[in-house]
Amino acid sequence: MNSYTAGIIVIGDEILSGRTQDSNSNFIAKNLIKEGVKLEEIVVIKDNKKTIIDRVVNYSGKYSYVFTTGGIGPTHDDITSESISEAFNLEHVINEDAFNILDRYYPEGEFNESRQRMAKMPIGSELIFNPMTAAPGFRIKNVYVLPGVPEIMQIMFLELIKKIKKGKPKLVVTINTDLYESKIAIYLKEIQDKYKNSSIGSYPYFNLAAKTGGVNIVVSSWDMTSVQPVVDDIVNMIKLNGGKSSIV
Amino acid sequence: MNSYTAGIIVIGDEILSGRTQDSNSNFIAKNLIKEGVKLEEIVVIKDNKKTIIDRVVNYSGKYSYVFTTGGIGPTHDDITSESISEAFNLEHVINEDAFNILDRYYPEGEFNESRQRMAKMPIGSELIFNPMTAAPGFRIKNVYVLPGVPEIMQIMFLELIKKIKKGKPKLVVTINTDLYESKIAIYLKEIQDKYKNSSIGSYPYFNLAAKTGGVNIVVSSWDMTSVQPVVDDIVNMIKLNGGKSSIV
Repeated sequence: MNSYTAGIIVIGDEILSGRTQDSNSNFIAKNLIKEGVKLEEIVVIKDNKKTIIDRVVNYSGKYSYVFTTGGIGPTHDDITSESISEAFNLEHVINEDAFNILDRYYPEGEFNESRQRMAKMPIGSELIFNPMTAAPGFRIKNVYVLPGVPEIMQIMFLELIKKIKKGKPKLVVTINTDLYESKIAIYLKEIQDKYKNSSIGSYPYFNLAAKTGGVNIVVSSWDMTSVQPVVDDIVNMIKLNGGKSSIV
Repeated sequence: MNSYTAGIIVIGDEILSGRTQDSNSNFIAKNLIKEGVKLEEIVVIKDNKKTIIDRVVNYSGKYSYVFTTGGIGPTHDDITSESISEAFNLEHVINEDAFNILDRYYPEGEFNESRQRMAKMPIGSELIFNPMTAAPGFRIKNVYVLPGVPEIMQIMFLELIKKIKKGKPKLVVTINTDLYESKIAIYLKEIQDKYKNSSIGSYPYFNLAAKTGGVNIVVSSWDMTSVQPVVDDIVNMIKLNGGKSSIV
Protein backbone atom coordinates (compact mmCIF):
# COMPACT_ATOMS: atom_id res chain seq x y z
CA MET A 1 0.00 0.00 0.00
CA ASN A 2 1.36 3.40 -0.96
CA SER A 3 1.41 5.44 2.18
CA TYR A 4 1.98 9.00 0.96
CA THR A 5 -1.14 10.98 0.23
CA ALA A 6 -1.85 14.57 -0.76
CA GLY A 7 -4.56 17.18 -1.08
CA ILE A 8 -4.49 20.37 -3.16
CA ILE A 9 -6.16 23.61 -2.08
CA VAL A 10 -6.58 26.06 -4.95
CA ILE A 11 -7.23 29.50 -3.48
CA GLY A 12 -8.77 32.12 -5.69
CA ASP A 13 -11.99 33.90 -6.60
CA GLU A 14 -10.76 34.05 -10.20
CA ILE A 15 -11.17 30.28 -10.58
CA LEU A 16 -14.66 30.28 -9.05
CA SER A 17 -15.75 33.14 -11.29
CA GLY A 18 -14.59 31.17 -14.34
CA ARG A 19 -12.18 33.95 -15.31
CA THR A 20 -9.22 31.61 -15.01
CA GLN A 21 -9.02 27.94 -15.85
CA ASP A 22 -6.96 26.34 -13.11
CA SER A 23 -4.06 24.37 -14.58
CA ASN A 24 -1.97 24.15 -11.42
CA SER A 25 -3.82 21.23 -9.92
CA ASN A 26 -3.44 19.20 -13.12
CA PHE A 27 0.30 19.91 -13.19
CA ILE A 28 0.71 18.87 -9.56
CA ALA A 29 -1.53 15.80 -10.05
CA LYS A 30 0.55 14.49 -12.97
CA ASN A 31 3.77 14.88 -11.07
CA LEU A 32 2.50 13.37 -7.82
CA ILE A 33 1.42 10.13 -9.48
CA LYS A 34 4.81 9.81 -11.20
CA GLU A 35 6.59 10.48 -7.95
CA GLY A 36 4.62 8.02 -5.84
CA VAL A 37 2.26 10.31 -3.95
CA LYS A 38 -1.46 9.56 -4.02
CA LEU A 39 -3.57 12.65 -4.68
CA GLU A 40 -6.80 12.22 -2.75
CA GLU A 41 -8.71 15.44 -3.32
CA ILE A 42 -8.60 18.91 -4.89
CA VAL A 43 -10.67 21.79 -3.61
CA VAL A 44 -11.08 25.27 -5.08
CA ILE A 45 -12.01 27.89 -2.50
CA LYS A 46 -12.60 31.63 -2.22
CA ASP A 47 -10.15 34.24 -0.93
CA ASN A 48 -11.79 34.02 2.46
CA LYS A 49 -9.87 33.62 5.70
CA LYS A 50 -12.36 31.36 7.47
CA THR A 51 -12.61 29.02 4.48
CA ILE A 52 -8.84 28.84 4.04
CA ILE A 53 -8.30 28.06 7.73
CA ASP A 54 -10.99 25.40 7.70
CA ARG A 55 -9.58 23.60 4.66
CA VAL A 56 -5.95 23.82 5.67
CA VAL A 57 -6.66 22.34 9.11
CA ASN A 58 -8.83 19.61 7.58
CA TYR A 59 -6.42 18.57 4.79
CA SER A 60 -3.32 18.89 6.96
CA GLY A 61 -4.81 16.38 9.38
CA LYS A 62 -5.95 13.97 6.67
CA TYR A 63 -3.09 13.84 4.16
CA SER A 64 0.70 13.44 4.21
CA TYR A 65 1.13 16.60 2.14
CA VAL A 66 -1.00 19.63 1.37
CA PHE A 67 -0.25 21.97 -1.52
CA THR A 68 -1.88 25.37 -1.71
CA THR A 69 -1.73 27.64 -4.74
CA GLY A 70 -2.60 31.32 -4.91
CA GLY A 71 -3.03 34.28 -2.62
CA ILE A 72 0.56 34.98 -1.57
CA GLY A 73 1.14 38.21 -3.49
CA PRO A 74 1.33 41.78 -2.20
CA THR A 75 -2.31 42.89 -2.51
CA HIS A 76 -5.21 43.09 -0.06
CA ASP A 77 -6.81 39.95 -1.54
CA ASP A 78 -3.67 37.88 -0.84
CA ILE A 79 -4.56 36.42 2.53
CA THR A 80 -3.25 32.86 2.26
CA SER A 81 -0.15 33.32 4.46
CA GLU A 82 -1.89 35.05 7.36
CA SER A 83 -4.73 32.53 7.20
CA ILE A 84 -2.28 29.64 7.46
CA SER A 85 -0.56 31.23 10.47
CA GLU A 86 -3.97 31.45 12.08
CA ALA A 87 -4.88 27.88 11.08
CA PHE A 88 -1.92 26.59 13.10
CA ASN A 89 -2.07 29.24 15.87
CA LEU A 90 1.36 30.43 14.92
CA GLU A 91 2.74 33.94 15.10
CA HIS A 92 2.68 35.70 11.71
CA VAL A 93 6.17 37.18 11.38
CA ILE A 94 8.67 38.64 8.94
CA ASN A 95 10.94 35.83 7.76
CA GLU A 96 14.41 37.36 7.67
CA ASP A 97 15.69 35.34 4.72
CA ALA A 98 12.59 36.18 2.70
CA PHE A 99 12.95 39.84 3.66
CA ASN A 100 16.58 39.91 2.50
CA ILE A 101 15.80 38.17 -0.80
CA LEU A 102 13.05 40.68 -1.59
CA ASP A 103 15.10 43.63 -0.40
CA ARG A 104 17.88 42.68 -2.81
CA TYR A 105 15.41 42.08 -5.66
CA TYR A 106 13.74 45.50 -5.68
CA PRO A 107 15.53 48.72 -6.70
CA GLU A 108 16.61 50.91 -3.80
CA GLY A 109 13.67 52.60 -2.09
CA GLU A 110 11.06 50.42 -3.81
CA PHE A 111 10.74 47.67 -1.22
CA ASN A 112 7.52 49.21 0.05
CA GLU A 113 5.07 48.11 2.72
CA SER A 114 2.93 45.98 0.34
CA ARG A 115 6.01 44.17 -0.91
CA GLN A 116 7.17 43.56 2.65
CA ARG A 117 3.91 41.67 3.27
CA MET A 118 5.33 38.94 1.03
CA ALA A 119 8.06 38.29 3.61
CA LYS A 120 5.52 37.55 6.35
CA MET A 121 4.63 33.94 7.13
CA PRO A 122 4.03 31.57 10.04
CA ILE A 123 6.94 31.50 12.48
CA GLY A 124 9.18 28.49 11.82
CA SER A 125 8.41 28.27 8.09
CA GLU A 126 10.96 26.90 5.66
CA LEU A 127 11.31 28.89 2.43
CA ILE A 128 10.54 27.48 -1.01
CA PHE A 129 12.72 29.50 -3.37
CA ASN A 130 11.35 31.34 -6.38
CA PRO A 131 13.99 31.72 -9.10
CA MET A 132 11.76 33.93 -11.27
CA THR A 133 10.26 36.76 -9.29
CA ALA A 134 12.01 36.39 -5.91
CA ALA A 135 8.91 36.23 -3.65
CA PRO A 136 9.29 32.84 -1.98
CA GLY A 137 6.71 30.26 -1.00
CA PHE A 138 7.06 28.35 2.22
CA ARG A 139 6.46 25.08 4.01
CA ILE A 140 4.96 24.95 7.48
CA LYS A 141 4.28 21.51 8.98
CA ASN A 142 3.04 19.40 6.05
CA VAL A 143 1.62 22.36 4.10
CA TYR A 144 3.45 23.70 1.02
CA VAL A 145 2.38 27.21 0.10
CA LEU A 146 2.86 28.12 -3.56
CA PRO A 147 1.94 31.06 -5.80
CA GLY A 148 -0.90 30.96 -8.33
CA VAL A 149 1.01 32.09 -11.45
CA PRO A 150 1.55 28.74 -13.24
CA GLU A 151 5.02 29.41 -14.68
CA ILE A 152 6.36 30.27 -11.22
CA MET A 153 4.42 27.61 -9.34
CA GLN A 154 5.69 24.85 -11.64
CA ILE A 155 9.38 25.62 -11.17
CA MET A 156 8.96 25.83 -7.41
CA PHE A 157 6.96 22.61 -7.27
CA LEU A 158 9.50 20.63 -9.30
CA GLU A 159 12.20 21.68 -6.85
CA LEU A 160 10.27 20.86 -3.68
CA ILE A 161 9.05 17.47 -4.91
CA LYS A 162 12.68 16.31 -5.08
CA LYS A 163 13.03 16.78 -1.35
CA ILE A 164 9.95 15.11 0.10
CA LYS A 165 9.45 11.47 1.09
CA LYS A 166 7.66 9.48 -1.57
CA GLY A 167 6.52 5.96 -2.34
CA LYS A 168 6.69 3.85 -5.50
CA PRO A 169 5.26 5.56 -8.60
CA LYS A 170 1.85 4.27 -9.67
CA LEU A 171 1.92 1.77 -12.53
CA VAL A 172 -0.37 2.96 -15.32
CA VAL A 173 -1.18 1.40 -18.71
CA THR A 174 -3.81 2.79 -21.07
CA ILE A 175 -5.56 0.61 -23.64
CA ASN A 176 -7.57 2.18 -26.44
CA THR A 177 -10.37 0.35 -28.20
CA ASP A 178 -12.99 1.17 -30.83
CA LEU A 179 -15.67 -0.73 -28.91
CA TYR A 180 -18.20 1.29 -26.92
CA GLU A 181 -17.83 1.06 -23.18
CA SER A 182 -21.39 -0.08 -22.66
CA LYS A 183 -20.64 -3.11 -24.84
CA ILE A 184 -17.71 -4.28 -22.71
CA ALA A 185 -18.77 -2.94 -19.31
CA ILE A 186 -19.83 -6.33 -17.97
CA TYR A 187 -16.51 -8.00 -18.93
CA LEU A 188 -14.47 -5.12 -17.54
CA LYS A 189 -16.22 -5.59 -14.22
CA GLU A 190 -15.31 -9.30 -14.22
CA ILE A 191 -11.67 -8.44 -14.83
CA GLN A 192 -11.80 -5.73 -12.13
CA ASP A 193 -13.24 -8.27 -9.67
CA LYS A 194 -10.41 -10.68 -10.51
CA TYR A 195 -7.61 -8.16 -9.90
CA LYS A 196 -8.55 -6.31 -6.73
CA ASN A 197 -5.14 -4.67 -6.33
CA SER A 198 -5.52 -2.84 -9.59
CA SER A 199 -7.98 -0.17 -10.55
CA ILE A 200 -9.62 -0.23 -13.98
CA GLY A 201 -11.02 3.07 -15.19
CA SER A 202 -12.98 3.45 -18.39
CA TYR A 203 -13.20 6.78 -20.25
CA PRO A 204 -15.43 7.01 -23.30
CA TYR A 205 -14.98 9.59 -26.03
CA PHE A 206 -17.09 10.56 -28.97
CA ASN A 207 -16.17 12.10 -32.29
CA LEU A 208 -19.53 13.28 -33.45
CA ALA A 209 -18.45 14.65 -36.80
CA ALA A 210 -16.78 11.38 -37.75
CA LYS A 211 -19.56 9.40 -36.03
CA THR A 212 -16.95 7.32 -34.26
CA GLY A 213 -16.08 6.80 -30.66
CA GLY A 214 -14.49 4.38 -28.30
CA VAL A 215 -13.02 4.10 -24.91
CA ASN A 216 -9.71 4.45 -23.15
CA ILE A 217 -9.27 1.85 -20.46
CA VAL A 218 -6.77 2.83 -17.80
CA VAL A 219 -5.28 0.05 -15.69
CA SER A 220 -3.36 1.26 -12.68
CA SER A 221 -1.96 -0.01 -9.43
CA TRP A 222 0.03 1.29 -6.51
CA ASP A 223 0.76 -2.21 -5.19
CA MET A 224 1.25 -4.74 -7.99
CA THR A 225 4.74 -5.34 -9.38
CA SER A 226 3.26 -5.43 -12.89
CA VAL A 227 -0.20 -4.77 -14.34
CA GLN A 228 0.57 -6.89 -17.42
CA PRO A 229 -1.79 -9.76 -16.44
CA VAL A 230 -4.68 -7.29 -16.21
CA VAL A 231 -3.74 -5.69 -19.53
CA ASP A 232 -3.50 -9.11 -21.21
CA ASP A 233 -6.97 -10.09 -19.99
CA ILE A 234 -8.46 -6.84 -21.27
CA VAL A 235 -6.78 -7.03 -24.68
CA ASN A 236 -7.99 -10.60 -25.01
CA MET A 237 -11.53 -9.68 -23.99
CA ILE A 238 -11.61 -6.89 -26.59
CA LYS A 239 -10.51 -9.35 -29.29
CA LEU A 240 -13.20 -11.85 -28.28
CA ASN A 241 -15.76 -9.05 -28.64
CA GLY A 242 -14.61 -8.25 -32.17
CA GLY A 243 -12.81 -5.01 -31.29
CA LYS A 244 -9.41 -3.55 -32.00
CA SER A 245 -7.08 -2.49 -29.20
CA SER A 246 -3.81 -0.65 -28.84
CA ILE A 247 -1.65 0.43 -25.95
CA VAL A 248 -1.45 4.22 -25.86
CA MET B 1 -27.30 40.30 -1.68
CA ASN B 2 -27.45 37.58 -4.31
CA SER B 3 -29.15 34.64 -2.72
CA TYR B 4 -28.46 31.76 -5.10
CA THR B 5 -25.31 29.78 -4.46
CA ALA B 6 -23.77 26.67 -5.94
CA GLY B 7 -21.12 24.02 -5.43
CA ILE B 8 -19.59 21.70 -8.04
CA ILE B 9 -18.54 18.13 -7.31
CA VAL B 10 -16.23 16.72 -9.99
CA ILE B 11 -16.20 12.93 -9.63
CA GLY B 12 -13.35 11.03 -11.22
CA ASP B 13 -10.07 9.30 -10.57
CA GLU B 14 -8.91 10.47 -14.00
CA ILE B 15 -8.77 14.08 -12.81
CA LEU B 16 -6.88 13.20 -9.62
CA SER B 17 -4.36 11.13 -11.57
CA GLY B 18 -3.71 14.10 -13.85
CA ARG B 19 -4.75 12.07 -16.89
CA THR B 20 -7.56 14.49 -17.66
CA GLN B 21 -7.63 18.25 -17.19
CA ASP B 22 -11.08 19.07 -15.88
CA SER B 23 -12.74 21.71 -18.03
CA ASN B 24 -16.30 21.12 -16.87
CA SER B 25 -16.04 23.18 -13.70
CA ASN B 26 -14.68 26.17 -15.63
CA PHE B 27 -17.54 25.96 -18.12
CA ILE B 28 -20.12 25.76 -15.35
CA ALA B 29 -18.39 28.57 -13.38
CA LYS B 30 -18.47 30.98 -16.33
CA ASN B 31 -22.12 30.35 -16.96
CA LEU B 32 -23.19 30.57 -13.32
CA ILE B 33 -21.70 34.04 -12.84
CA LYS B 34 -23.42 35.27 -16.01
CA GLU B 35 -26.70 33.78 -14.88
CA GLY B 36 -26.66 35.19 -11.37
CA VAL B 37 -25.63 32.17 -9.32
CA LYS B 38 -22.68 32.48 -6.93
CA LEU B 39 -20.28 29.54 -7.19
CA GLU B 40 -18.89 28.96 -3.71
CA GLU B 41 -16.68 25.91 -4.05
CA ILE B 42 -15.45 23.18 -6.41
CA VAL B 43 -14.23 19.83 -5.19
CA VAL B 44 -12.64 17.01 -7.16
CA ILE B 45 -13.13 13.60 -5.57
CA LYS B 46 -12.42 9.93 -6.23
CA ASP B 47 -14.83 7.34 -7.58
CA ASN B 48 -15.55 6.25 -4.03
CA LYS B 49 -19.04 5.78 -2.65
CA LYS B 50 -18.36 7.04 0.86
CA THR B 51 -16.65 10.19 -0.44
CA ILE B 52 -19.42 10.93 -2.93
CA ILE B 53 -22.12 10.52 -0.27
CA ASP B 54 -20.25 12.72 2.16
CA ARG B 55 -19.78 15.57 -0.32
CA VAL B 56 -23.26 15.44 -1.79
CA VAL B 57 -24.88 15.62 1.65
CA ASN B 58 -22.56 18.44 2.69
CA TYR B 59 -22.94 20.59 -0.45
CA SER B 60 -26.67 19.92 -0.78
CA GLY B 61 -27.18 21.32 2.70
CA LYS B 62 -24.93 24.36 2.17
CA TYR B 63 -25.75 25.60 -1.34
CA SER B 64 -28.86 26.38 -3.42
CA TYR B 65 -27.62 24.13 -6.23
CA VAL B 66 -25.14 21.31 -6.51
CA PHE B 67 -23.77 20.13 -9.87
CA THR B 68 -21.98 16.82 -10.14
CA THR B 69 -20.05 15.70 -13.22
CA GLY B 70 -18.86 12.22 -14.05
CA GLY B 71 -19.52 8.64 -13.07
CA ILE B 72 -22.93 8.05 -14.62
CA GLY B 73 -21.89 5.71 -17.45
CA PRO B 74 -22.41 1.96 -17.78
CA THR B 75 -19.19 0.62 -16.22
CA HIS B 76 -18.30 -0.69 -12.76
CA ASP B 77 -16.50 2.56 -11.88
CA ASP B 78 -19.65 4.61 -12.55
CA ILE B 79 -21.10 4.78 -9.06
CA THR B 80 -22.39 8.35 -8.87
CA SER B 81 -26.11 7.55 -9.22
CA GLU B 82 -26.24 4.78 -6.63
CA SER B 83 -24.15 6.89 -4.23
CA ILE B 84 -26.59 9.78 -4.55
CA SER B 85 -29.57 7.50 -3.86
CA GLU B 86 -27.76 6.39 -0.73
CA ALA B 87 -26.84 9.96 0.23
CA PHE B 88 -30.54 10.84 0.41
CA ASN B 89 -31.75 7.45 1.67
CA LEU B 90 -33.82 7.02 -1.46
CA GLU B 91 -34.62 3.82 -3.28
CA HIS B 92 -32.39 3.27 -6.33
CA VAL B 93 -34.81 2.35 -9.10
CA ILE B 94 -35.21 2.05 -12.86
CA ASN B 95 -36.64 5.33 -14.17
CA GLU B 96 -39.18 4.30 -16.79
CA ASP B 97 -38.69 7.31 -19.06
CA ALA B 98 -34.93 6.84 -18.98
CA PHE B 99 -35.38 3.13 -19.68
CA ASN B 100 -37.57 3.85 -22.69
CA ILE B 101 -35.20 6.48 -24.11
CA LEU B 102 -32.26 4.09 -23.88
CA ASP B 103 -34.27 1.14 -25.18
CA ARG B 104 -35.17 3.12 -28.31
CA TYR B 105 -31.59 4.35 -28.73
CA TYR B 106 -29.85 0.98 -28.88
CA PRO B 107 -30.31 -1.48 -31.76
CA GLU B 108 -32.61 -4.39 -30.97
CA GLY B 109 -31.10 -6.86 -28.53
CA GLU B 110 -28.25 -4.54 -27.54
CA PHE B 111 -29.84 -2.84 -24.53
CA ASN B 112 -27.86 -5.06 -22.20
CA GLU B 113 -27.57 -5.19 -18.43
CA SER B 114 -24.72 -2.64 -18.23
CA ARG B 115 -26.64 -0.19 -20.37
CA GLN B 116 -29.73 -0.67 -18.22
CA ARG B 117 -27.70 0.55 -15.22
CA MET B 118 -27.84 4.01 -16.82
CA ALA B 119 -31.61 4.06 -16.32
CA LYS B 120 -31.29 3.59 -12.56
CA MET B 121 -31.44 6.62 -10.28
CA PRO B 122 -32.94 7.83 -7.00
CA ILE B 123 -36.72 7.42 -6.90
CA GLY B 124 -38.45 10.72 -7.72
CA SER B 125 -35.65 12.05 -9.96
CA GLU B 126 -36.42 14.41 -12.81
CA LEU B 127 -34.56 13.62 -16.05
CA ILE B 128 -32.07 15.98 -17.68
CA PHE B 129 -32.20 15.09 -21.36
CA ASN B 130 -29.11 14.22 -23.38
CA PRO B 131 -29.58 15.02 -27.06
CA MET B 132 -26.26 13.44 -28.04
CA THR B 133 -25.91 9.96 -26.64
CA ALA B 134 -29.34 9.40 -25.07
CA ALA B 135 -28.22 8.46 -21.52
CA PRO B 136 -29.90 11.14 -19.40
CA GLY B 137 -28.69 12.96 -16.32
CA PHE B 138 -31.09 13.74 -13.51
CA ARG B 139 -32.05 16.14 -10.77
CA ILE B 140 -32.90 14.97 -7.28
CA LYS B 141 -33.65 17.65 -4.65
CA ASN B 142 -31.13 20.45 -5.39
CA VAL B 143 -28.53 18.14 -6.96
CA TYR B 144 -28.03 18.09 -10.74
CA VAL B 145 -26.23 14.98 -11.93
CA LEU B 146 -24.36 15.37 -15.22
CA PRO B 147 -21.97 13.25 -17.30
CA GLY B 148 -18.22 13.84 -17.45
CA VAL B 149 -17.78 14.04 -21.24
CA PRO B 150 -17.53 17.82 -21.79
CA GLU B 151 -19.38 18.04 -25.12
CA ILE B 152 -22.40 16.26 -23.65
CA MET B 153 -22.26 17.92 -20.24
CA GLN B 154 -22.21 21.41 -21.79
CA ILE B 155 -25.36 20.94 -23.87
CA MET B 156 -27.22 19.47 -20.91
CA PHE B 157 -26.06 22.23 -18.57
CA LEU B 158 -27.10 25.02 -20.92
CA GLU B 159 -30.59 23.53 -21.05
CA LEU B 160 -31.02 23.06 -17.32
CA ILE B 161 -29.70 26.51 -16.38
CA LYS B 162 -32.60 28.06 -18.28
CA LYS B 163 -35.05 26.44 -15.89
CA ILE B 164 -33.64 27.19 -12.45
CA LYS B 165 -34.23 30.22 -10.23
CA LYS B 166 -31.45 32.76 -10.49
CA GLY B 167 -30.46 36.20 -9.23
CA LYS B 168 -28.98 39.20 -10.98
CA PRO B 169 -25.80 38.46 -12.99
CA LYS B 170 -22.60 39.64 -11.33
CA LEU B 171 -21.23 42.93 -12.67
CA VAL B 172 -17.63 42.48 -13.76
CA VAL B 173 -15.14 44.95 -15.27
CA THR B 174 -11.48 44.13 -15.90
CA ILE B 175 -8.81 46.81 -16.06
CA ASN B 176 -5.38 46.04 -17.44
CA THR B 177 -2.31 48.02 -16.49
CA ASP B 178 1.42 47.83 -17.15
CA LEU B 179 2.22 48.69 -13.53
CA TYR B 180 3.31 45.87 -11.24
CA GLU B 181 0.76 44.91 -8.62
CA SER B 182 3.18 45.42 -5.76
CA LYS B 183 3.52 49.06 -6.81
CA ILE B 184 -0.20 49.79 -6.59
CA ALA B 185 -1.20 47.30 -3.88
CA ILE B 186 -1.54 49.93 -1.18
CA TYR B 187 -3.80 52.18 -3.28
CA LEU B 188 -5.93 49.26 -4.41
CA LYS B 189 -6.55 48.42 -0.78
CA GLU B 190 -7.69 52.00 -0.11
CA ILE B 191 -10.16 51.77 -2.98
CA GLN B 192 -11.34 48.35 -1.81
CA ASP B 193 -11.94 49.78 1.68
CA LYS B 194 -13.96 52.64 0.18
CA TYR B 195 -16.27 50.36 -1.85
CA LYS B 196 -17.19 47.51 0.43
CA ASN B 197 -19.99 46.22 -1.83
CA SER B 198 -17.53 45.49 -4.60
CA SER B 199 -14.72 43.02 -4.72
CA ILE B 200 -11.38 44.03 -6.26
CA GLY B 201 -9.17 41.16 -7.40
CA SER B 202 -5.68 41.62 -8.74
CA TYR B 203 -4.03 39.08 -11.05
CA PRO B 204 -0.43 39.64 -12.07
CA TYR B 205 1.11 38.13 -15.18
CA PHE B 206 4.64 37.94 -16.43
CA ASN B 207 6.04 37.68 -19.91
CA LEU B 208 9.54 36.58 -19.15
CA ALA B 209 10.82 36.51 -22.72
CA ALA B 210 9.71 40.08 -23.34
CA LYS B 211 10.68 41.09 -19.78
CA THR B 212 7.31 42.73 -19.34
CA GLY B 213 4.42 42.14 -17.04
CA GLY B 214 1.50 43.83 -15.46
CA VAL B 215 -1.71 43.14 -13.71
CA ASN B 216 -5.36 42.60 -14.50
CA ILE B 217 -7.60 44.21 -11.92
CA VAL B 218 -11.06 42.71 -11.76
CA VAL B 219 -13.80 44.79 -10.18
CA SER B 220 -16.99 42.89 -9.50
CA SER B 221 -20.17 43.19 -7.50
CA TRP B 222 -23.34 41.23 -6.94
CA ASP B 223 -25.11 44.19 -5.28
CA MET B 224 -24.12 47.53 -6.82
CA THR B 225 -26.15 48.92 -9.70
CA SER B 226 -22.90 49.98 -11.39
CA VAL B 227 -19.21 49.44 -10.63
CA GLN B 228 -18.23 52.53 -12.67
CA PRO B 229 -17.23 54.65 -9.62
CA VAL B 230 -14.79 51.94 -8.54
CA VAL B 231 -13.40 51.60 -12.05
CA ASP B 232 -12.97 55.40 -12.32
CA ASP B 233 -11.04 55.52 -9.04
CA ILE B 234 -8.73 52.73 -10.16
CA VAL B 235 -8.08 54.21 -13.61
CA ASN B 236 -7.31 57.54 -11.98
CA MET B 237 -4.99 55.96 -9.44
CA ILE B 238 -3.08 54.15 -12.21
CA LYS B 239 -2.63 57.46 -14.06
CA LEU B 240 -1.35 59.20 -10.90
CA ASN B 241 1.22 56.43 -10.56
CA GLY B 242 2.47 56.93 -14.11
CA GLY B 243 0.88 53.81 -15.59
CA LYS B 244 -1.26 53.02 -18.59
CA SER B 245 -4.66 51.39 -18.27
CA SER B 246 -7.29 49.90 -20.52
CA ILE B 247 -10.61 48.18 -20.00
CA VAL B 248 -10.39 44.61 -21.30
